Order: sequence, then structure tokens, then C-alpha cells
Amino acid sequence: MVAVASQLQKDEEANIASGSSGRFMASFGKLSDRVVDIARKIKKLGQDDPRRIIHSLKVGLAVSLVSLFYYFDPLYDGFGSSAMWAILTVVVVFEFSVGATLGRGLNRGLATFLAGALGFGAHHLAVLSGETVQPILLALFVFLLAASVTFIRFFPHMKARYDYGLLIFILTFCMISVSGYRDEEILEMAHKRVSTILIGGLTAVSVCILICPVWAGDGLHNSVATNIEKLGNFLEGFGNAYFKKLEDGDSTKADMQGYKSVLNSKQSEEAQTNFARWEPRHGRFRFRHPWKHYLKIGSLSRQCAYRIDALSGYLHSEIQGPMEIGSEMEEACMKMSLESGKALKELAASMRAMISPGSATPHITKSKLAANSLKSLLNINTAALMCQDTGSDLLDLIPAATVASLLVDVVYCTEKIDESIHELASLAKFKSVKQKEDEKPKFQRQGAMGQPRTLSFGPHHVVTIRQASLCRQESHKDER
Amino acid sequence: MVAVASQLQKDEEANIASGSSGRFMASFGKLSDRVVDIARKIKKLGQDDPRRIIHSLKVGLAVSLVSLFYYFDPLYDGFGSSAMWAILTVVVVFEFSVGATLGRGLNRGLATFLAGALGFGAHHLAVLSGETVQPILLALFVFLLAASVTFIRFFPHMKARYDYGLLIFILTFCMISVSGYRDEEILEMAHKRVSTILIGGLTAVSVCILICPVWAGDGLHNSVATNIEKLGNFLEGFGNAYFKKLEDGDSTKADMQGYKSVLNSKQSEEAQTNFARWEPRHGRFRFRHPWKHYLKIGSLSRQCAYRIDALSGYLHSEIQGPMEIGSEMEEACMKMSLESGKALKELAASMRAMISPGSATPHITKSKLAANSLKSLLNINTAALMCQDTGSDLLDLIPAATVASLLVDVVYCTEKIDESIHELASLAKFKSVKQKEDEKPKFQRQGAMGQPRTLSFGPHHVVTIRQASLCRQESHKDER
Repeated sequence: MVAVASQLQKDEEANIASGSSGRFMASFGKLSDRVVDIARKIKKLGQDDPRRIIHSLKVGLAVSLVSLFYYFDPLYDGFGSSAMWAILTVVVVFEFSVGATLGRGLNRGLATFLAGALGFGAHHLAVLSGETVQPILLALFVFLLAASVTFIRFFPHMKARYDYGLLIFILTFCMISVSGYRDEEILEMAHKRVSTILIGGLTAVSVCILICPVWAGDGLHNSVATNIEKLGNFLEGFGNAYFKKLEDGDSTKADMQGYKSVLNSKQSEEAQTNFARWEPRHGRFRFRHPWKHYLKIGSLSRQCAYRIDALSGYLHSEIQGPMEIGSEMEEACMKMSLESGKALKELAASMRAMISPGSATPHITKSKLAANSLKSLLNINTAALMCQDTGSDLLDLIPAATVASLLVDVVYCTEKIDESIHELASLAKFKSVKQKEDEKPKFQRQGAMGQPRTLSFGPHHVVTIRQASLCRQESHKDER
Repeated sequence: MVAVASQLQKDEEANIASGSSGRFMASFGKLSDRVVDIARKIKKLGQDDPRRIIHSLKVGLAVSLVSLFYYFDPLYDGFGSSAMWAILTVVVVFEFSVGATLGRGLNRGLATFLAGALGFGAHHLAVLSGETVQPILLALFVFLLAASVTFIRFFPHMKARYDYGLLIFILTFCMISVSGYRDEEILEMAHKRVSTILIGGLTAVSVCILICPVWAGDGLHNSVATNIEKLGNFLEGFGNAYFKKLEDGDSTKADMQGYKSVLNSKQSEEAQTNFARWEPRHGRFRFRHPWKHYLKIGSLSRQCAYRIDALSGYLHSEIQGPMEIGSEMEEACMKMSLESGKALKELAASMRAMISPGSATPHITKSKLAANSLKSLLNINTAALMCQDTGSDLLDLIPAATVASLLVDVVYCTEKIDESIHELASLAKFKSVKQKEDEKPKFQRQGAMGQPRTLSFGPHHVVTIRQASLCRQESHKDER
């Protein structure tokens, strides 16, 4: 409505202004609106991640450098059109993260070298075989190589890491073997190609690494930690939002919607893992940092996020308020939610700081105690409670029971995430934080999956948690 | 252990066999094992999707064709190294699906043309400005263009459809503007480049379309339908598996695990949608087929899959058997699961056949009736039931209540999927199947999301379904 009204107003203004100048002004106004809109979008894109602006400038710099190098280089005439290949290499190889750039650069260099050698051999063989057979033999070579390497590109493992290299392999082989040059010419050309690719590739990689580098490994590490934090944010807020029906501000709502990006994080995590594996030692990460382990943590986070997605449905339900389930049970649910949320946030924080995630343990213990106390409560009170209070029937109970059940699952998922981050901490040799052993409850992390877990808190409390163990089948393996 | 034992055995065999020939045989055996293993993998990859083999052969054919064309063409000397560009174009443009190939081809062609013109202008301007300023001006142009176009590549909309074109735009602009050629030479080169790219692009596109074409649109249509079918398979089997604890065969288990691939289908669906939008009219699909609507259906399918993932946890729980909830309630749950499963499979089948999805309506009606009867059952019987039978306490109820609640959500999701497929049917003008109006119950599909839904089955039954409406917030919008 507002848009229509403003449009009408603009039209009126356009009518009042006389003749073509008025019309010009009106269309100029529309144009300027559009420009302002685009400018706003550009600004937002840059503000969301300023590294994008830096990356763009870096690409511009690398291309200009290579151009100027060829302009001023005394060898320029010698290189001839090979200079183009250096520019091509820079533009094609330069990616956002160091890992991706290195991966593409290495792929391109190695594939060009190998395919060049093989193409030279094929060309030589074809020339030896005589004028008549030569084109047929060459076409056959090209056909066989292109078909088989294209097929190899379908292997998931090859696709993930060497896709670009295989493409360049086909390309270079075809171009070298089919070229009408004499052998000596090819060798000279190959020499030029290799040197230009080296110059282009080194320029790209140097600019990428030396000026504000964006490490895929850092990105992966942080995004996995951020995802866990987002789950924690939801759980911290869930108890209050569900039981107290708080009318929260927009900031809390935004916090609680954050988990949705976790649901579809699989592909980007896999891509970042593949890039990170190309990266050398940098910052806090050693050369053989266990990048693949992040996929496991990510998979567990998604398991947890699926449960949270189910929980969030009950949160936004306008029809079914939470039933009166007694303050003790409500308290247990709130505690499960709050403590597992805190545990996840502690885990995320310690992962970011790369210290042993001991600080999450008390929260996990508390959330498990809450799950246990929920169980005992139900064991003791319910039958009696139900008979006393026939007014609230079982129907009202179902949403609350589901919420409680999902929360128990979430507690279990949290524990699994905790375990996997402990594994990461030992694999990647995170720094340990000295804690007073006396303060810490003796906590045995021993229960195998699906079996009842026994927690021992000193001699007085031995409790057993039995749960639906939803996270048990990690979808990681079965995911396509 | 087995591996170690067999290794020891092999070593022993190697020791017994005398001298180098024995060692050679052993290592030859290892090698042949490895070859057999790789051959098995290749065979599996080909069998999983024979189109991969055909695609590989097509790429080989296209590259050979272009090579031979340049070999036999009388203009070969005229084209010179431009022939390389035709091969390069074929190798780089040829993708698995027609849509992807067309998209890349159009991107490449258009970007080369535009960037060539702009680069020519920049080069001309720089030459005019004189010897001293020329390199500085050129470097500035190259820097500005490379930086700004690289930034544009970050726009999600541009990235999805024009990423390759923008890359080629930078590439061509830099190569043309920086080249040391005179203006006339550039024009000649441009002419050659455009003609070679046309020849390469047309060869790639023709081979791609004319020989066993793989349409991205077909793929998208089928994969969305298959995903819905997978959800249906799970739900059809769930009732029996959960309540009867059937020890099913492997085939059923595989059927019920199928839904897992739905969880992470977002990225591949988006990619296929982008490809499909490049494709011309083909087979049963018109030119402006509503491809984007498939994203909505896919998003709803994932919502349903998240619930099913939660359900599957209860299925594999070894601890908590289903409680004794009375045969009527069990029947209602089984019916919800079975009927919504059937409805989804009907929807998938009618989507595949591109006919109006009327055949699913009775199943949806039945599943909703089952959800209603569950509600009435609980309303009437439970309090009494609970008081009579204090032996089975509320704790045992929780998993079953959760399952029932999740099933109600699934029924709701099924209905949403049904609605979105009806929308697709009307948008894409699916053929309608004539049904006898008398047989069909009057079914009002009216309830807005989150409001109580009133179903009218003639004058006698007016029932209201209230539910947690989990699917309400479609994650589609909020997903990153």
C-alpha cells in the first residue's frame, strides 16, 4: 500500500512538473531509487563480511601485478602470448581462501606438467606413425583420454579434491597432442607455459597468503564452533520461552532462529574441510590438524539441530500452551534445556579458544541429573497426580511429554558433542586448563552407545540414565 | 585381526617361495588385488548411474570432433593457435546436464563478447593517452574491473547463475586490454576468438543435447518425487516396525533408511533448479516450467524428514519398548503412519506421471481422521485408564506420546506437501484424472497455517484438528 501511495504521489509530482523535463526528473528519480537500492545491497554485502572487499582488492592487485610484470619485463617479446596464460592462471586460480587457492594452483601445475608430458608422448607417437594414420591415432588418443578422465571425475573422492586438476589434465593433453607444431616447438612452448603458469600461480598464492589471508581451516573451525553456539543459544532461551511464554525482544528471537543455518551446513563444511587439507601450518593449527574430525562434530550438531527444529515447533504453537505439569517437572525441563545450552556454549567457547573443554562438564552433569530427576519425578508422582487431577487429560500432556522427551534426546546429543570435542582436543592437542581435582565430580564417561549409562558422583549418588538414544545412529555414514 | 593374519600368511608364503621370483609374485598378487578392487569400484560407479559412462563417451566424442575439425579444416593455418580455444571451450563448457552446459556456454559466449568489447575500448583509450601513461592507465583499468567484478561474484543471485560468466569476463577483459597488439590485430584476434568459441560451444551443446541428453529438469523433478517417496516408504514401514517390533528383512531396513538422503538435499536441489532454468522446452516440460516451486516442495520434504529422523530414533531404541497404550490408540498411530506414507507415495507417483494428485486425497483424509480419533480416544479414556492401571506409569508413556505427537506433525507436513504439489500441478498444468465426484468426500482445504482446521465430511462429522503445527515456520526463508 505504501509503495502504491508513494508511486501515486510520484506520478502526481511528475504531472505537475511540466513537459519532458518533468518526465525526465521522474524517471531519473526512479533510476536513482534503484541505484540507492543496489548501493545499499552492496554495502550490506561488504558489511556482512569485510573480507569480501579485501578479497576483491587482492584479486585486482594480483592481476595488475602480473600485467605490469609482462609490460615491463624485457622478456615480454620472448613470452609473447604466453603472458596471457599467466593472467589466465591468476584469474582462475585465485580463490577466496588460501586452501582453495593452493588446491587449485597445485592441481593446475601438476596436471599441466603431467598432461603436457603425456601429450608430448602421444604427439610424438602419432607423428612417427606416418601422415595417414596420424590424425586417426590422435583423435583416438584424445577420445580415450577425455572419456576415461571424465569418468574418473565422477569418483566422489576425486571430485572433492582433484576435480579441477582432472579438467586441466584433459585440456592440456588435447591441446598439446593435437597442436600442429613440431616436437621442438612443443618443447619450447611447454617451457614457456610452465614458466608462465609458475609466475601466475606464485603471484596468486603470494598475494593470497601475504595480504590478509583467509584460511579455510580457520573458517571451518569457527563455523563448527559457531554452529554449536547457535544450538546453545536456542536451548538457553527455550525453557523461558516455552514455559513462561515470555514476550521476548527481537534480539532473543533472532538468537533462537540462528540454529536453522545448522540444518543445512553439511555441504559447506565438507567443502571447507577439503580446502583446509591443502593448507600449510598456520596460526594455531599444525600441519596435520585433524580436519576430518570436524565433519563428525558437524554431523552430531546437525543431529541435535533436527531435534531442536522439532522443539521449535512447540515453541511457536499458538494453540497448545504448556500443560500444568507441576513445578518440579517444569523445573527439570527448564534445567535440562538451560544446562545443555550452557554446556554447548562452553564447548563452543573452549573450542574457539582451543583449550580442553573441561568447563562444559559440570553443565552436562547437571543436565543429566535433571534428566534423571525428571524420571524419578514421573516414577513417583504421576499416577497419583493424574488420578487427583482428572481435569487435565492426557491430550494436554502430549506436547509437554514430547518436549520433555526431545529435551532428553538433546541432553544425549550434547553429551555426544562433548565427547567428540574431547576427541578433537586430544587429537589436536588442545591446551589443558588446570582445574582443582577436588572440585570436579568423578565423572565416568564410559557407557557404550545404547546401553544404560552409569554416572558416579561420589559414593552417595549412583544414578542410571536410560534414554531413547536418538543420536545413536549417526546419520554421517548413511548420508549420501 | 584378519588383515594382520592374512598379511602374516602372505609373508610366510613369500619366505617359502625362494628368492626374488617369489617376492615378485607376492607383490604382483597385492597389485592385482588392488587392481581388482579399483575395477570393482569403477563397475559400481557405472552401474549406479549408466549415464556417467555415456557422458564420458560424449565428452570424448566432442573433443575428438573439434580436434579433427581443426586438423582437416583448410582454414587451420588461418586459425592457428585459436584452434586451442575451441578445444578449451569444449572441455570447459561440457557439463553433465544440458542445463549446466547451456548455462556455461551462454555465460562464456556473452561474457567473452562483452568483455572483449570493453577491453578493446580500454586498450584504445590507453594507447591514445600516450606511451608514459599507458601502462599505468591499463593497470588501473585492470585493477578496477577485476576488483569490482570479483565483488559482484559474491552476490548470491549472481553466484548461482552467472559465476562462470563473471570469471570469463575478468579473464577476457584483462587479456584483451593488456595485450601488446595493435588495434587491428586485436580485432582480428577477437574475430578468431569469437568464431572458435562458437564452434567449440556449438559442438559441446549439440553433442550434449543430441546424444542421450541428461536434462537437469528431469533430474530435479524425479529427485523431488523420489525424496517424497522415500519419506512414504519410511512411514509405511514405521507402524509395523515400532508397534509389532517386526524383525524385518534387509530390504525393508534399506527402504526405511532411504529418508536420510532427504535431510541434506537442499544444495543439490538448488543447483539443479539453477541448471533447469537454462533448459529449453523438452519432453513433458514447457519452457517456463515452474522450477522454483520445486524448492518449496523440497523444503517441506526436508521439514517432514527432520520429524522422521526424530521418529526413527524411537524405532531403534532397544531400551524403551512401546508401552501398552491400548489397541485403539495403537491402531490410530499405525493408521496415521500408514496412511500418510501411502499419501506421500501416491503424491510421488502422480508427480512422476505429471497428473493431478487427487489419488492421495483419500489417504490424507484417512490419516487426518486417525489423528482426530487419537485425540477423541485420549479425551475420553485416558484419565480412567491411567487410574485403573497404575502399574504402567507415565514414564513408559513418554516415548509413545512423543511418537504419537511426531506422527501428528508428520500428518500435518504431509498435508502441506500435498498442498504444494497441488499448486505445482496447477502452475505446470498437470493432466487431471477424472474422478467420480460422488465417491470423493467434500474436503475443504481452507485452514490457514496455525489456525484450527475444520474438515467437513458431510453433515454428520465436523471435526477439528488442532495440532502443534510444526511445519508452520518453513525454514526455507530463514535458511542461509
